[in-house]
Amino acid sequence: MTRKVAGPEIERLIQLLARLPGLGARSARKAALTLIKRRAELLEPLAAAMAEAARSIIVCPSCGNLDTTSPCAICADPRRDPALLVVVEEVEDLWALERAGVVNARYHVLGGTLSPLDGIGPDQLNIANLLTRASAPEITEVLLAFSATVEGQATAHYLSEQLAPASVTVSRLAQGVPIGGELDYL
Amino acid sequence: MTRKVAGPEIERLIQLLARLPGLGARSARKAALTLIKRRAELLEPLAAAMAEAARSIIVCPSCGNLDTTSPCAICADPRRDPALLVVVEEVEDLWALERAGVVNARYHVLGGTLSPLDGIGPDQLNIANLLTRASAPEITEVLLAFSATVEGQATAHYLSEQLAPASVTVSRLAQGVPIGGELDYL
Repeated sequence: MTRKVAGPEIERLIQLLARLPGLGARSARKAALTLIKRRAELLEPLAAAMAEAARSIIVCPSCGNLDTTSPCAICADPRRDPALLVVVEEVEDLWALERAGVVNARYHVLGGTLSPLDGIGPDQLNIANLLTRASAPEITEVLLAFSATVEGQATAHYLSEQLAPASVTVSRLAQGVPIGGELDYL
Repeated sequence: MTRKVAGPEIERLIQLLARLPGLGARSARKAALTLIKRRAELLEPLAAAMAEAARSIIVCPSCGNLDTTSPCAICADPRRDPALLVVVEEVEDLWALERAGVVNARYHVLGGTLSPLDGIGPDQLNIANLLTRASAPEITEVLLAFSATVEGQATAHYLSEQLAPASVTVSRLAQGVPIGGELDYL
């Protein structure tokens, strides 16, 4: 005996919430009820924030970061070291490094790692643009800040070879990342 | 050294997502990035579903359920047993009973349990309306379907006394609810 439990508007909200990472069917129902019960303080502001994000957030054409300006605030920041380029897998990793405050340079977001079994080759990643940026005269060092996973290290190896013709020092993260750890967790 | 990691539009989205039950700071960041990366298939539909929910969902003036019609679809359903009223603590519990398909009657959502320490007395709950509904001639039984918690059972005891003048049979859920269990988990 299956019954429609809530109206279609609520069911649709629950279904979409359940597609967020970290929310299952039960927590999506709880989240939907919390939203509806706290309409003025949570549901309406969140709906507005999402609409605003959908309207205004763009991918930085230079580095691949997400921001509302083009280029992004980090690429446009004149106080960043112009000689260093820090290459990361995903925007999450850029955020993690920024939170840690260990980098005062610009980034390049690859959009993933090489993964031939998943059909992700060099053309699926933001690599051509990286090689162009790395050949700019002001860049003297490229730091490959990848996760210490097999895919991360294989991608770092591939990029080291691709960057060899450019007159830059290619370095990797210092040892100390726990093997198998993802950068965003550190 | 604290730096603004993402732009204010993204930070606001993360902050609001972190206020949902089940999402912490880290999972809210992950959810925000997932939303932004999957703009057309997730962010825009979810923003629209939330705006639609904020616009259309109302509290049923009869039973306290959440729906887009007044009265709600359950109160308006002519196939429901008119003689039985099932009293629950929260809308979650109504949904849990509907999913289980064990009730073919109408509901009354109290909006919580009596909790003097938290300042929740009879006036803070949807009790006056329940007494009015229970005194209608077609109602012959009121089933108190509360959680097997101290507060749930104290509220059931209070309501049994309040309902004594009405000519209805007051019953409680059959034994078998694990002690301390919340109804929504079953």
